[in-house]
Amino acid sequence: MSAVPEFPAYDPGFAAAAKGHRDTTGLPGFLGVEMSDVGPGRMRFSLEVRPELMNPFGVLHGGVISALADHALGAVCYPVIPQGTWAATTEYKLNLLAPVREGTVEAEAEIVSMTMRMAVVRIDIRNGDRLVALVQGTVVLKPPKG
Amino acid sequence: MSAVPEFPAYDPGFAAAAKGHRDTTGLPGFLGVEMSDVGPGRMRFSLEVRPELMNPFGVLHGGVISALADHALGAVCYPVIPQGTWAATTEYKLNLLAPVREGTVEAEAEIVSMTMRMAVVRIDIRNGDRLVALVQGTVVLKPPKG
Amino acid sequence: MSAVPEFPAYDPGFAAAAKGHRDTTGLPGFLGVEMSDVGPGRMRFSLEVRPELMNPFGVLHGGVISALADHALGAVCYPVIPQGTWAATTEYKLNLLAPVREGTVEAEAEIVSMTMRMAVVRIDIRNGDRLVALVQGTVVLKPPKG
Amino acid sequence: MSAVPEFPAYDPGFAAAAKGHRDTTGLPGFLGVEMSDVGPGRMRFSLEVRPELMNPFGVLHGGVISALADHALGAVCYPVIPQGTWAATTEYKLNLLAPVREGTVEAEAEIVSMTMRMAVVRIDIRNGDRLVALVQGTVVLKPPKG
Repeated sequence: MSAVPEFPAYDPGFAAAAKGHRDTTGLPGFLGVEMSDVGPGRMRFSLEVRPELMNPFGVLHGGVISALADHALGAVCYPVIPQGTWAATTEYKLNLLAPVREGTVEAEAEIVSMTMRMAVVRIDIRNGDRLVALVQGTVVLKPPKG
Repeated sequence: MSAVPEFPAYDPGFAAAAKGHRDTTGLPGFLGVEMSDVGPGRMRFSLEVRPELMNPFGVLHGGVISALADHALGAVCYPVIPQGTWAATTEYKLNLLAPVREGTVEAEAEIVSMTMRMAVVRIDIRNGDRLVALVQGTVVLKPPKG
Repeated sequence: MSAVPEFPAYDPGFAAAAKGHRDTTGLPGFLGVEMSDVGPGRMRFSLEVRPELMNPFGVLHGGVISALADHALGAVCYPVIPQGTWAATTEYKLNLLAPVREGTVEAEAEIVSMTMRMAVVRIDIRNGDRLVALVQGTVVLKPPKG
Repeated sequence: MSAVPEFPAYDPGFAAAAKGHRDTTGLPGFLGVEMSDVGPGRMRFSLEVRPELMNPFGVLHGGVISALADHALGAVCYPVIPQGTWAATTEYKLNLLAPVREGTVEAEAEIVSMTMRMAVVRIDIRNGDRLVALVQGTVVLKPPKG
């Protein structure tokens, strides 16, 4: 009773090159997002909790979690779609389960369903061994024009 | 790195009595929802696709899926909360992945996170071995008054 | 600062014919859904609360609300899309705000954003003058094949 | 047929002091979030699009929108809840409608439903006169301990 989609376009070379990549600019750079692992239809990210990311109550700002989620939703699609196709996150839903105060946040994204035009992705976000957020969202796949 | 909550209040007797239960009245009766399996923090439901549940395009009405989801969100909580507590679904999100035309629909609900006041539940819905819907929602747990 | 999309394909004849339509079969028939009003990019539905739609706690089954929402999401699109195009609800999110015990439930659906391929719709659901549910969802527009 | 909740705890003094406030630290500081207007049960925020907030495709990173949304969900509650109560965003859903390339992003947050324990909030996000994102979410209100 498997429901896992297959990913014929998965590019292990892309994956090997991407692993360990850490953004240094833009929002992902500010957050300190590192792509820590990648496989066909799944990708793992981590970021270190640091003072600049907290809210005034000493808790990781929820927007850090949601921005990490947004980033992961699109990124997990790239190794399994044709080159030149654009993965545009169109909607997602986030449940924040527990406050994060220190340590590392890890997001495990998985493509649960994929057609030519759309991927549906779930993300589990943990702080140590505690589940702190759950995400479910849709990415529209736009082939290159012309 | 387990994130599965424990369920000290789980009542195997309740579970044994509930298994195989089929609603005959109300909306679950109209849909023909049967509780086909139950465990600590998880519950499985099934319903047979029949002509009365189709839309004019010959596809199972999406409302059947969403009503089944709503039903499952609350029901999965009862075997693991104190007697007299009310499990009120407060919100959920549903992705419909593929049309259903015949056979059986099976919903597997799992409590992913639970506190004294709230449970967060995910549901995978299948038609045969195809995943046809994904649900993520919140149930508020209301202790008995007085 | 208007954000309301325009609907050049709106068909007032369709609208006039549809108004007052009440499904007698299928899930909408069981629920007793009536289309009470229609305009460009908006549609209103109502259903009467009756014993068969309640849950064992004497409250309208949440699945009635969600099925009504699913129905409205697709239906509101038909008067404003080309004939033969299929409006397939692909995802939505529902907040249940208050229990419903009697009277009428009215759902006001509005297309908030529309492209050639996709409509995003919000629905406000009331019981008398109380807001009882809020919906936000996406409908994929599929042109006829061939 | 009004559904707008009343806000007896609304503090116009708080509102007057907050208006025009611009975070300079943390994630809101990095984003450049300014609270541009406030009223009972509603709050408006703006941020300037700048190169550091773009993704590699020259489009505002979706995480900027979602982080702004997360920020607004909690913030809109503070002027209408008792002092010392904590407004913790527990879940939300976001539809991204159109890419943002330049100018200003404005988020208008409105509390649509509020009880002692929970607020449900909708946010419309615009770029100029174009609607670019829609949000619907839940904030849990936690009274001070002891």
